[in-house]
Amino acid sequence: MSSADAAGFDDLWDALLPIGRDPASGGYHRLGWQSADLTCREWFTEQAGRRGMDLECDRNGNLWAWRNPAAAGGAVVTGSHLDSVPDGGAYDGALGVVSAFAALDALAERGATPECPVAVVAFAEEEGARFGVPCLGSRLLTGALRPAAARALRDAEGVSFDEAARGAGVDPHALGAEPDRVARIRAFVELHVEQGRGLVHTGHAVGIGRGIRPHGRWRLEFRGAADHAGTTALADRHDPMLGFAQAVLDVRHAAARHGVVATIGRVNVRPNATNVIPAAVTAFLDVRGGEEEVVRSVLAEVIGRAERHGARDHVQVELVEESWSPAVSFPADAVARLQVALGPVPVLACGAGHDAGALAAAGVSSAMLFVRNPSGVSHAPGEHADHADCLAGVAALADAIAALGA
Amino acid sequence: MSSADAAGFDDLWDALLPIGRDPASGGYHRLGWQSADLTCREWFTEQAGRRGMDLECDRNGNLWAWRNPAAAGGAVVTGSHLDSVPDGGAYDGALGVVSAFAALDALAERGATPECPVAVVAFAEEEGARFGVPCLGSRLLTGALRPAAARALRDAEGVSFDEAARGAGVDPHALGAEPDRVARIRAFVELHVEQGRGLVHTGHAVGIGRGIRPHGRWRLEFRGAADHAGTTALADRHDPMLGFAQAVLDVRHAAARHGVVATIGRVNVRPNATNVIPAAVTAFLDVRGGEEEVVRSVLAEVIGRAERHGARDHVQVELVEESWSPAVSFPADAVARLQVALGPVPVLACGAGHDAGALAAAGVSSAMLFVRNPSGVSHAPGEHADHADCLAGVAALADAIAALGA
Repeated sequence: MSSADAAGFDDLWDALLPIGRDPASGGYHRLGWQSADLTCREWFTEQAGRRGMDLECDRNGNLWAWRNPAAAGGAVVTGSHLDSVPDGGAYDGALGVVSAFAALDALAERGATPECPVAVVAFAEEEGARFGVPCLGSRLLTGALRPAAARALRDAEGVSFDEAARGAGVDPHALGAEPDRVARIRAFVELHVEQGRGLVHTGHAVGIGRGIRPHGRWRLEFRGAADHAGTTALADRHDPMLGFAQAVLDVRHAAARHGVVATIGRVNVRPNATNVIPAAVTAFLDVRGGEEEVVRSVLAEVIGRAERHGARDHVQVELVEESWSPAVSFPADAVARLQVALGPVPVLACGAGHDAGALAAAGVSSAMLFVRNPSGVSHAPGEHADHADCLAGVAALADAIAALGA
Repeated sequence: MSSADAAGFDDLWDALLPIGRDPASGGYHRLGWQSADLTCREWFTEQAGRRGMDLECDRNGNLWAWRNPAAAGGAVVTGSHLDSVPDGGAYDGALGVVSAFAALDALAERGATPECPVAVVAFAEEEGARFGVPCLGSRLLTGALRPAAARALRDAEGVSFDEAARGAGVDPHALGAEPDRVARIRAFVELHVEQGRGLVHTGHAVGIGRGIRPHGRWRLEFRGAADHAGTTALADRHDPMLGFAQAVLDVRHAAARHGVVATIGRVNVRPNATNVIPAAVTAFLDVRGGEEEVVRSVLAEVIGRAERHGARDHVQVELVEESWSPAVSFPADAVARLQVALGPVPVLACGAGHDAGALAAAGVSSAMLFVRNPSGVSHAPGEHADHADCLAGVAALADAIAALGA
């Protein structure tokens, strides 16, 4: 990597870095289509313009910057997403978009830009942190998510998906699958910070993704009856907090027994007042594992126990599936081409969902590169990748694009 | 009660009823010094003006409407509060203020207004639903709460107490005990909807309060480390949700074993995202019982277990007392005078805190009247008192004021 390449990466990265940063925690609040995310999208537009790339916002709010758009043949596409979880890290998503521009710059510098169409993409609402459904933009694009399902979503403040889309300049009536756009992609490669420590002891700064484990998100609703915390006898309560608390522990036990990861990280309590027995508690459950049947077994155990506890406590329990992402194996030939381009680097399975998985599920030849994360921490302010590793990622991505576009 | 008295009550009640009402749930959102509460305070000002009463806002934001303010002798004061819990009932607090004006109207109608000074009071932030400390206005008045402690409070949106006070026209630099104002009160009587079913099977619409059980509120902080829900092995997590969930169950078990009521009805999770292991969970604990030592024992058990679980989960646990209200017995002579005025009505202990308790703790001769609540539900939209029972409450309050002012 030349020093000019490093300076190019730094310019891209430094311009994005202040956007949506919480000065207290150092974390990022770039929830999909909220103001910081919109500013990140302006950054994308500006970077495309500086490079003379053609900018497009597709029907589902995904941003595309094209080089050689009119050239013959299928397109090589690279990119990731710009949105974050609340108080998330700087690298998740953003590193893939910055590296995509930087890799194209490096290829142009050495006169090695592929002759086929090449695009940098920033998919919308990848985290699902605002509307609950991850990979929203890429799944609308491939048709895995119906427009009506997206349009029925509301964020935690009650803002409708339609209203948020309009705020980002996206027409909610125009949402929907774009099979021609998907078919045009010859190869997609997404670079991402590793979310785990798979690379730490390998001596490699960059690895290749093998696939994505199955992943589901569910909403557990516990509905009881609000009453006065000081005057309502324990026996007369219909307190939904009890069954919720038991479910948190049951989820952990079932996950440990079945060898999967399962998390309740988001909770809404109504009315959420110290001196009021809650009327209702909503818990959001995230389960991921090696095999789909195992994930489904954990879920069945948890809801079975929750219903029994609910009957005891006079609390109604309901389970609603918010999203389901089947297991994805990146196509063997796509992985093999990256291995040829990059040489002997580690090949990793991945516990986190990605837009590359959504595209692979739709038949696109997709693959991923991961950049080493010393602590493995992600979705938190401590998420990190060393500068030298980021530059190694850009170099690897440039080699991958050159190989895929040859 | 004459039909004119009934019409007077209805006018007062109907003017207050739409303020802060959630059309979906039928519940009320009149959190202290937020807009609906400020509108309720305007209603108070208007009602005082219509009756030619002198309006005062004291240094702590409590509203006073005076009749015969310059007369000799100690004052008879009646009233309650206008703020509510989130999605609370229509009666808690409001019934006491409406009944106070209606009772004075009834006394004036029959030419029986006491010759001493008489005031209707609406205490500020009784519920503690916004700033966490119940009976905030009455405790600042008596000196039980230091102004510095109040001024350090913030609401859930991060608004400081100072800012909220200024928005209500209260100077936060002028907060503080008013011993002369307290000493001037010869007798205080607060009418309140019953929060429980103590009167339901007695055949009486109105009862007299004997005292208030001890009551504490604590904040339990669980601090772990945020990380990715999909990629962080169970063994590597510092997940504060687990210890919190165990504490919810421990609180319930300890309360049942010790014969008290204890509730966790309010929870804040950070960052509260589906795919992020929480960094921190804050739980608000409310415990009330017959004896102070028993309440303290429950607390010691809960924190002891939480610390052991925290050590296991690599989660820090901290317990912070938000408020402590010692047991209150209303003075025997105050209770006896109400019994003489009202005849043989039930005398009830009370599990809920009230401004009358804060005044009694400061040595004011205080007492309470309770109006029957058919379901016993309170702090919820279903809170109710029959119209006839409300009118019986006004008549009883008028008799009480006459007796106390004689």
